[in-house]
Amino acid sequence: MSSASVILQLICPDRPALVSELAGWVAANGGNIRHADHHTDSGAGLFLSRIEWDLQGFGLPRQAIPSAADSLAQRLGGEAQLHFSDDHPRVAILVSKQSHCLLDLLWRARSGELPMQVPIVIANHPDLESSCKEFGVPFIHVPVTRETKAEAEQTILELLIEHRVELAVLAKYMQVLSGTFLRQFPNVINIHHSFLPAFKGAQPYHRAWERGVKLIGATSHYVTEELDDGPIIEQTIAHVSHRDEVQDLIRKGRDTERLALARALRLHLCRQVIVYRGRTAVFA
Amino acid sequence: MSSASVILQLICPDRPALVSELAGWVAANGGNIRHADHHTDSGAGLFLSRIEWDLQGFGLPRQAIPSAADSLAQRLGGEAQLHFSDDHPRVAILVSKQSHCLLDLLWRARSGELPMQVPIVIANHPDLESSCKEFGVPFIHVPVTRETKAEAEQTILELLIEHRVELAVLAKYMQVLSGTFLRQFPNVINIHHSFLPAFKGAQPYHRAWERGVKLIGATSHYVTEELDDGPIIEQTIAHVSHRDEVQDLIRKGRDTERLALARALRLHLCRQVIVYRGRTAVFA
Amino acid sequence: MSSASVILQLICPDRPALVSELAGWVAANGGNIRHADHHTDSGAGLFLSRIEWDLQGFGLPRQAIPSAADSLAQRLGGEAQLHFSDDHPRVAILVSKQSHCLLDLLWRARSGELPMQVPIVIANHPDLESSCKEFGVPFIHVPVTRETKAEAEQTILELLIEHRVELAVLAKYMQVLSGTFLRQFPNVINIHHSFLPAFKGAQPYHRAWERGVKLIGATSHYVTEELDDGPIIEQTIAHVSHRDEVQDLIRKGRDTERLALARALRLHLCRQVIVYRGRTAVFA
Amino acid sequence: MSSASVILQLICPDRPALVSELAGWVAANGGNIRHADHHTDSGAGLFLSRIEWDLQGFGLPRQAIPSAADSLAQRLGGEAQLHFSDDHPRVAILVSKQSHCLLDLLWRARSGELPMQVPIVIANHPDLESSCKEFGVPFIHVPVTRETKAEAEQTILELLIEHRVELAVLAKYMQVLSGTFLRQFPNVINIHHSFLPAFKGAQPYHRAWERGVKLIGATSHYVTEELDDGPIIEQTIAHVSHRDEVQDLIRKGRDTERLALARALRLHLCRQVIVYRGRTAVFA
Repeated sequence: MSSASVILQLICPDRPALVSELAGWVAANGGNIRHADHHTDSGAGLFLSRIEWDLQGFGLPRQAIPSAADSLAQRLGGEAQLHFSDDHPRVAILVSKQSHCLLDLLWRARSGELPMQVPIVIANHPDLESSCKEFGVPFIHVPVTRETKAEAEQTILELLIEHRVELAVLAKYMQVLSGTFLRQFPNVINIHHSFLPAFKGAQPYHRAWERGVKLIGATSHYVTEELDDGPIIEQTIAHVSHRDEVQDLIRKGRDTERLALARALRLHLCRQVIVYRGRTAVFA
Repeated sequence: MSSASVILQLICPDRPALVSELAGWVAANGGNIRHADHHTDSGAGLFLSRIEWDLQGFGLPRQAIPSAADSLAQRLGGEAQLHFSDDHPRVAILVSKQSHCLLDLLWRARSGELPMQVPIVIANHPDLESSCKEFGVPFIHVPVTRETKAEAEQTILELLIEHRVELAVLAKYMQVLSGTFLRQFPNVINIHHSFLPAFKGAQPYHRAWERGVKLIGATSHYVTEELDDGPIIEQTIAHVSHRDEVQDLIRKGRDTERLALARALRLHLCRQVIVYRGRTAVFA
Repeated sequence: MSSASVILQLICPDRPALVSELAGWVAANGGNIRHADHHTDSGAGLFLSRIEWDLQGFGLPRQAIPSAADSLAQRLGGEAQLHFSDDHPRVAILVSKQSHCLLDLLWRARSGELPMQVPIVIANHPDLESSCKEFGVPFIHVPVTRETKAEAEQTILELLIEHRVELAVLAKYMQVLSGTFLRQFPNVINIHHSFLPAFKGAQPYHRAWERGVKLIGATSHYVTEELDDGPIIEQTIAHVSHRDEVQDLIRKGRDTERLALARALRLHLCRQVIVYRGRTAVFA
Repeated sequence: MSSASVILQLICPDRPALVSELAGWVAANGGNIRHADHHTDSGAGLFLSRIEWDLQGFGLPRQAIPSAADSLAQRLGGEAQLHFSDDHPRVAILVSKQSHCLLDLLWRARSGELPMQVPIVIANHPDLESSCKEFGVPFIHVPVTRETKAEAEQTILELLIEHRVELAVLAKYMQVLSGTFLRQFPNVINIHHSFLPAFKGAQPYHRAWERGVKLIGATSHYVTEELDDGPIIEQTIAHVSHRDEVQDLIRKGRDTERLALARALRLHLCRQVIVYRGRTAVFA
């Protein structure tokens, strides 16, 4: 639909003239900016920026841009991430038994709505194998028990490396990843079926029903070692009433989960999310 | 706009033929039903019902209806509440320094949108006196310090009794009412500035900002002795982003607070809320 | 999850004691009411009711209930529809080239969220055949050109009859059904990709973009001869901004379309919708 | 809460390096950018920008900045608008009989949420005089009949000029302003009580009820000569059901109207809206 673009994400200490410096650098290299978005966190004294420009016509050769961006970031005392919009990241999807998020993501990947490749689906239950077959995506069953958990995580890590996976998406994967795992593979997005920080942990719909809430929610966030406490990317809600049993909350919740996860993943894939200090800036 | 109606709220143990029995009782007395709404909580084995019918043409004299409803409820082993739509309850509003909910409620009362009388506004700070004057509503300043809290609550109780108040609304009243108070005057509705059960207690917007949520909320609930834990009537939300400072959350939050409180109060005043087992059935 | 129930939908002229009469009839036959919901359209002088009760324990044999309900409706001068919750209707899905609604419906049918059978998918383009195969649903390609439209509609009608279809769902079927067709097969639900009555007809997203709206919508409605004018069942919206091109509206719109159609269809299948006077009462 | 800032809004033909040029100009004059937001309308070949920087420390004296911005815009072949955040515009509110939007705006102005002065309220009915008195705002009654309309508009124009009004807000002013008026005073924001473009013109709630919609809306837009056709700033919605009579739609609609108007006005006052080609870019 559109030609490729270069996307620079940058965090650095705040000081005057940063926008000018960044835009000037792009312009000096002949770049035509499509989007430029900045945010200053004055409490933290940080400047965040996302700039996207046409790859075509840019003065630096593609392979030279990342290191040029790093040099720029170093001059500013910060850190840069550099992506090309036509590099579709390799994303692994981890699931258990529920299919709604998995199928939604596979459909969106196939239709091009989510710019990603899915080289592998990993599951701790065998149930969803045929769903993956329909989409031609390899499905690997890695069972997890309390005793075999460390071993299973090691297997998953090897699979992620073998398949050159950049990001893992927990699409209703009902296992908690250990700190050991996350320190080796930190790029993980999860969907939690509550409006965090309410109802962290297990069975949020049951507890929401118990509490008699009038809205339920879903939260997509980056995974950190502390359960359900990572940087939030997207939250969605649905209305419920006294007529809704726990089963109805679960049913209605599926739609909020699918939407929150799909939106968060798209934001991530379009490189619109910058994580800092336990939170996200979402340049949408 | 419409003529007066009789509203029966009933809770009783569930068993067959209850709808028929209730509707039959109304019909047998010549009542023309406007609305009939029922709910069975099968887990609790409870039947809840709200029936509203025309007062005009009903076979029992107005003053005889409440005791007739009580007899009916007793026959069913339950409890009834009986109200007339043209009885506008006497509601006291308790405030501190913030005006947004107070003014909103006073406007809605004056315009007839909230069918209530406001005989008195009670405040622990003097700031909002002139706002009440504009609406011709008596304003009483009852200062509260840690030392005088018990005494102040006693003063408030006496004011509520003196003014024959049926319901107290905490419209950003930044004091926690004691169990002693609530046991003597249990009909209290509060607005809490978070999406409960997230961010119970003090400074929810500051904590929401810290957590980096993407939605903030407000919750209107009946007050119980445990802080921010009473039956929820209404919840509203607003979207926020990384651009929003705490002050922006507070500003955006004011609109969700006003709406959640006004809607909850209207539901209560129209006798559409039945409280049971720490939760509400809202027949809207 | 729950045992079968009987669902009675009734419309009749309003008069006193109708609720009592209906509930009394159910009780007299030993029925245990699960849900009873009524609405009086005072302008039209009509009474609408939906009553659902346990099939088990009901005094009439299953096959005798429909005619008993008809007799009841006749006594009240109205019309009844009688359904059993374990009768999953046979629903045909009509599509063109877009897969998002089709796949969504097939997933929801397979997971049991939509209580229906899908004996057939009919398409005026061949593109979605493999998607149907994945779900084991027969796909029939009925091409339509301006010249062959009448003939194609005749073919579709025969397919609907042959497969004993009760309801046809237009899941982005980009053809207008003729009055001739609708008079023979009137049970059709459509999804229109705008917030009706705004942007009736072709290319609503393009026109929404032109107009510069800040919200887009989707509308699920029963189909009538006048285009996009039938009784509305469900409407959903999504926020858009100046950053959204027409393609983004189309992308965001797909999610609102899927949700509006799935919700409307579930309401229909759960027999929660009563159509009258060009509008719907939705007992949800 | 924060010190004053300078806000530049610019539209010019799109070409490379514009962001760099603008940010460079600010930086060259020692400005510290708080927010920078851009949009390219590639179809129209236009570049839109909003840049906000600290007034304090900027190298140009306050009174010299507007003409410097104009020179900049001329060099870019475009047009600039320059504002200071501590210049609170003089806004006239026009009303008829309904108070909900008026009181909401006056309260938000008094609380500082809307950074504006309200030197005058103009009404074609006398009803809201006392409401204005409460806020200490002059109220002027300018009756309008079919015969006196031209004359009344002339009176209003003179009042706007006399009170040095920058913007007029139609807060449920139930008169259509003529082209003659708008050509002399084009800065007018209206609130229309429907989800435009649905239900343009009179009695939108009655028509929405007739159509049986499930959502109602409100639209705040700039006024143009063609009725309800001006650039849209903000749209809000509320859910309705078959239980809602026209009166309920009107009641529920009041809250959506208040919110849409207040939000749109704040966006305008914070200079976050750029109008072009019949649409708005809202840099929020």
